[in-house]
Order: sequence, then structure tokens, then C-alpha cells
Amino acid sequence: MKTHYSRIALGTLISAISLSITSPAFAQFAKPEDAVKYRQSAFALMGAHMGRLAAVVKGETPYNKDDVVRNAAIISMLSGMPWQAFTSGTESGKTPGKNDALPNIWTDGAKFKSASEKMQAAVADLNSAAQSGNPENLKKALGAASQTCKACHDDFRKK
Amino acid sequence: MKTHYSRIALGTLISAISLSITSPAFAQFAKPEDAVKYRQSAFALMGAHMGRLAAVVKGETPYNKDDVVRNAAIISMLSGMPWQAFTSGTESGKTPGKNDALPNIWTDGAKFKSASEKMQAAVADLNSAAQSGNPENLKKALGAASQTCKACHDDFRKK
Repeated sequence: MKTHYSRIALGTLISAISLSITSPAFAQFAKPEDAVKYRQSAFALMGAHMGRLAAVVKGETPYNKDDVVRNAAIISMLSGMPWQAFTSGTESGKTPGKNDALPNIWTDGAKFKSASEKMQAAVADLNSAAQSGNPENLKKALGAASQTCKACHDDFRKK
Repeated sequence: MKTHYSRIALGTLISAISLSITSPAFAQFAKPEDAVKYRQSAFALMGAHMGRLAAVVKGETPYNKDDVVRNAAIISMLSGMPWQAFTSGTESGKTPGKNDALPNIWTDGAKFKSASEKMQAAVADLNSAAQSGNPENLKKALGAASQTCKACHDDFRKK
């Protein structure tokens, strides 16, 4: 029963996540630094689970479909979350602590949104590839997803 | 089709998350500080989404079932993730930066595991309450879930 509820919830969540990019009302951060922490946390978890899949593709971790599936599912769920937290006032230099966001996130919002959407599409493909149980599919999809991460980092994150 | 895959993935994920508590082989952190960052990130996101539900219960945010459902789903998904990251060598004082983990996490592992399981059970109830669409259910379940957060913080986190 719990699983049943959860499956419904994820269906809703995936839709919600797609909406959240264009729905700033969903963003609720008391302070700018809370938004920074939120997006950094989402990216940190995504990075950790991308790393686990990379280890499988590199042969450092034995291929195990269940592990691959759950890592990809986590990445998929997180992939829609950070974007709501790039709110006004959270630019680098405007918040205490580490903040690597470049100003063009805000000055070239259309390009940033496009990059975020490419990543989410690539992550959806990665999720499908994980489900397929085919290590070659995984390798290709992980490579493509990683490229979307890198592209966004190159353009929108401090070196 | 994407949603279909995702629902399957979440079913697997929920099972995987439950397993991960007793399956340290799933934990893969190159450095102790990576594990600390991982668990702190998961808790930070949980806290943010608990806060959004709290705002609804307090009447600061209008009740909207879809928002409630997606916040609870995110909390539910995250609730199984931090535990794998309380690995040996990640005690407070052993890693650079902020680390509020008290030593009894490791010296009283059974109690810590029990506390983590209580939280996950309460969060599963919260997820069901969110799905029910009944604000009173939400209020009760959020209160109960918050208590499990607090209990663990009281016992296992630096003041």
C-alpha cells in the first residue's frame, strides 16, 4: 500500500518538478542563503549518485542492475529540484559562504533554463537506460547526461 | 512512458532505501568529508520541504493538495538516504568543516538505527496523509514526523 501511494506520488512529483522551473511560487526560501544551500544540496546528491554510476561504467564497481536503477532514480528525482532555488538575491557574492553561481544565470535566464532542461531530458534518458538493464545503454546515456552537467558548469559556474 | 518507468523506479528505490540502512556496500564515498556532505545535503533538503509543509499547517501558505503531495513525496524519497553516509571516520572532529554528528551515533548504533527507522516510518505516514487530501491528517502526521526529527537531533546532534 505504501508503495502504491509512493508510485502515485512520484508521478505527481515528476510533473511538479517540470512545472517548478516556471513556477517560482513553489520556491519558498526564508533567506537567500537557504536557497543557495538548497540548490547546492541537490547538486551534491546528484553528483554523488552520478559518481556511483560512473564507477560502474568504468568497471570500478561491478554492474548490478538494481543498484544502477536506484542510483538513476535518485538522480532523476533530484534533477528537477535545484532550479527553483536560483532566485533573485542568490547570486555569488550576495550570500555568505561558498556560492559559485555566475551572474549570467540571471542575465541570460533563457540560456540557463535551456541548459537545465537539456540536463533533465538527458537524466530521463539515463533513467530509461538504467531500467533497460543494458550496460551499453547505461554507458551511452551516462556519457550524454554528464555532458549536460559539464556544459552547464562550463557556462554558469565559477571555474 | 517516462512516468511508467519512474513509478517502477520509485518502487525499487523505496525498497532499496530500506535495504541501504543495513547494506553498507551501497555506500561509496571516496573521502569521509564526501559522506558528511552527502548526509548534510539530504537532511538540508528534507528540512526545506518539512518547512514548506509546516508553513501550510500554520496557515502561512494556503493549503494546496498538489503542493502538499509533492513536498511529502520529496521528503519520503530523501528519508532513506542519509543513513548510509554515517560511515566510520565521519565523526565530528574527524572531518573538515561543519559536522554536528555526536559520537553516540557510532557507539550506540542500535539506538541510532532505531531512531532512523522511526523517522522513516513517520515520513511514510506523512506521505499517506498528504495523499489523503485531508489537512487534519496532514497536521497530525507532520507533527509526528517532526517529533522523530527532533528526537534524533536531541540525542545525536550537537546542540
